[in-house]
Amino acid sequence: MKLNKNYSMLKENYLFAEVANRAKKFAEENPTAEIIKLGIGDVTLPICKAAVEAGKAASEEMGKAETFRGYGPYEGYEFLREKIAAYYARRGVKLDLNEIFVSEGAKNDVTGILDLFAVDNIVLAPDPVYPVYVDSNIMDGRKIIFANGNEQNGFLPLPDKKVKADIIYLCSPNNPTGAAYDKAGLKAWVDYANSLGAVILFDAAYEFFISDDRLPHSIYEIDGAKECAVEICSFSKTAGFTGVRLGYMIIPRRLAGGALNSMWLRRQSTKYNGASYIVQRMGEAVFCEEGMKQIKAGVAAYMKNAALMSDTLTKLGIWHTGGVNSPYIWLKCPGGDSWAFFDRLLSGAGIVGTPGAGFGKMGEGYFRLTAFNTFENTSKAMSRLEKLLK
Amino acid sequence: MKLNKNYSMLKENYLFAEVANRAKKFAEENPTAEIIKLGIGDVTLPICKAAVEAGKAASEEMGKAETFRGYGPYEGYEFLREKIAAYYARRGVKLDLNEIFVSEGAKNDVTGILDLFAVDNIVLAPDPVYPVYVDSNIMDGRKIIFANGNEQNGFLPLPDKKVKADIIYLCSPNNPTGAAYDKAGLKAWVDYANSLGAVILFDAAYEFFISDDRLPHSIYEIDGAKECAVEICSFSKTAGFTGVRLGYMIIPRRLAGGALNSMWLRRQSTKYNGASYIVQRMGEAVFCEEGMKQIKAGVAAYMKNAALMSDTLTKLGIWHTGGVNSPYIWLKCPGGDSWAFFDRLLSGAGIVGTPGAGFGKMGEGYFRLTAFNTFENTSKAMSRLEKLLK
Repeated sequence: MKLNKNYSMLKENYLFAEVANRAKKFAEENPTAEIIKLGIGDVTLPICKAAVEAGKAASEEMGKAETFRGYGPYEGYEFLREKIAAYYARRGVKLDLNEIFVSEGAKNDVTGILDLFAVDNIVLAPDPVYPVYVDSNIMDGRKIIFANGNEQNGFLPLPDKKVKADIIYLCSPNNPTGAAYDKAGLKAWVDYANSLGAVILFDAAYEFFISDDRLPHSIYEIDGAKECAVEICSFSKTAGFTGVRLGYMIIPRRLAGGALNSMWLRRQSTKYNGASYIVQRMGEAVFCEEGMKQIKAGVAAYMKNAALMSDTLTKLGIWHTGGVNSPYIWLKCPGGDSWAFFDRLLSGAGIVGTPGAGFGKMGEGYFRLTAFNTFENTSKAMSRLEKLLK
Repeated sequence: MKLNKNYSMLKENYLFAEVANRAKKFAEENPTAEIIKLGIGDVTLPICKAAVEAGKAASEEMGKAETFRGYGPYEGYEFLREKIAAYYARRGVKLDLNEIFVSEGAKNDVTGILDLFAVDNIVLAPDPVYPVYVDSNIMDGRKIIFANGNEQNGFLPLPDKKVKADIIYLCSPNNPTGAAYDKAGLKAWVDYANSLGAVILFDAAYEFFISDDRLPHSIYEIDGAKECAVEICSFSKTAGFTGVRLGYMIIPRRLAGGALNSMWLRRQSTKYNGASYIVQRMGEAVFCEEGMKQIKAGVAAYMKNAALMSDTLTKLGIWHTGGVNSPYIWLKCPGGDSWAFFDRLLSGAGIVGTPGAGFGKMGEGYFRLTAFNTFENTSKAMSRLEKLLK
């Protein structure tokens, strides 16, 4: 038996382990220090009441013969796909129910979709990058090239016509930078992909955080996107479902002459048995009026943290992006070296963030802060930051 | 962009679509006929009260700040892995918690594990076979050979030393045949795999249905199995969780010098974010004393159906296996042709079953009945069967 040799090509990702180690060491050496975590990429607010009630009701249904459900459709129940289609319709995007595929989350989908592509494809990913896009392709043995984000382009790289690619990752609003493409930027990518017969894997996990009305939430707001783009969405950050597990992927029937849509259904019918009925009912509840109000309040609470961090950085004259349409802020490190800045922030202010070097070579010299802590802790952290860096 | 060409090698699996079409046509032509479905591979009894209460409690926890949980461990929460380890310990199998990986179900695991193997491996599957084992390998481009089940070997093929294989599928108790290996049979396979450096993917989805105390529930009851076998388990049929979605896979640290266990964790950390917290609490509840009592009662109800079907077939002098350690019965078709028998059963007795030809060439001439309907319907069906075939 031969193992998949590609796994030996994976870089050990020490980023979060190293962050945790340094934080632990600091805590041990400074037992009275109050450490404030602004590096977490996980939500902290409880889920909305509507989803709680739906989870309880669905659990009850499963305990009674007359309402019990066994295997559900691979694509997810229609009651949920209808809600998703309506959500898109409100933005002027028309989807057929059979273009929507429910899952346990974006990570499952953005990596699973690679099953449908030959190994012999060139992958284009942004730099800095969410490591999953890179690692999942290394595991398959694909060649990966990068589109560089930097201060000049606001960490929103545009297509380079001299570069040929087959599979293109876009994440907007972006993790880790929080930068979000406008319609012109996405159109440039859609036109580029269509000119090459390439596929865009559009990660829209943070679309719900967009506050600027001019920015697109879905790539399908761009003409030509249905011919070249798959869209990957998640309830994780939108509804606080990181522990509940629910997402969905849109595969238009126009993509690759219909092949991708039918191949994905075939793939799911072989490798999957649908998301939990209980969790799907919780997702359905998020879309109802009460649920929507509640999750908007949750997102607003995080964005209040983000606004405070952004204001503080502006006061300090520190270049940054994000924090307006995303719970992430990406700042330029005073002093340059991102791990050195990490240490300075930890020892000088008891704040734990994430060094940009962990997200790729274009991340060196930059730093990610997240808006997922409490307002009280975020305020405390920003006061300390001001004292440290003024 | 190039698509994965292996998908064009997949056979369209018309089995259940064809079964459904013929049943629908019969229903239209015979509007007063009461059709009894004995072909379903899905549970019908509601989940146990313990699991319902756990689902409700966990949903409530997620709605409160002090008990809310975000991302869980990729391998699953320790509270569940501890219960699983204890379940194995009761059978004399000692597992470390880090050898247990929780998931949404056996299908995800038995297909996902293939990520860890090179394409250049020979796959050995039983015939008749659960189509997922074959299709997932076709999708990857692997060569597949078969170990033939037949009446002479009781549909429990043993290793052929002249045959070389790298990845070996065993499903015991078997879907579709219901046949279950004894310890000697599994030992033959374990020794064979170890002699070749091959890996056994042991599907134990139906182990909870075993009533014969001499039969092994886990392949790890066999010496040498920790060196060569992965075990795939599911709450689907055991606890009626086909719509709830929960399973687990055991990857011993001894396998491939530890490589498979660490590769799987790496794979999950890239492609997965854990099973739903709510569903994991429901799984934990199944293992408590009350939960175990309740699921045993559910399985006993199905096995009462199986016993009745087996007795009826014995009375009719029809050769069959299964029904004692499995909710499936695999019978030899009077007349030989399995689709012809399907039609005869449907038109003559209003019973819908599954023709064996749908599970591989060794399935031709055989037929699967399942024990998942009600006792009332199963009794009615057996009376009709006796009238039809005596």
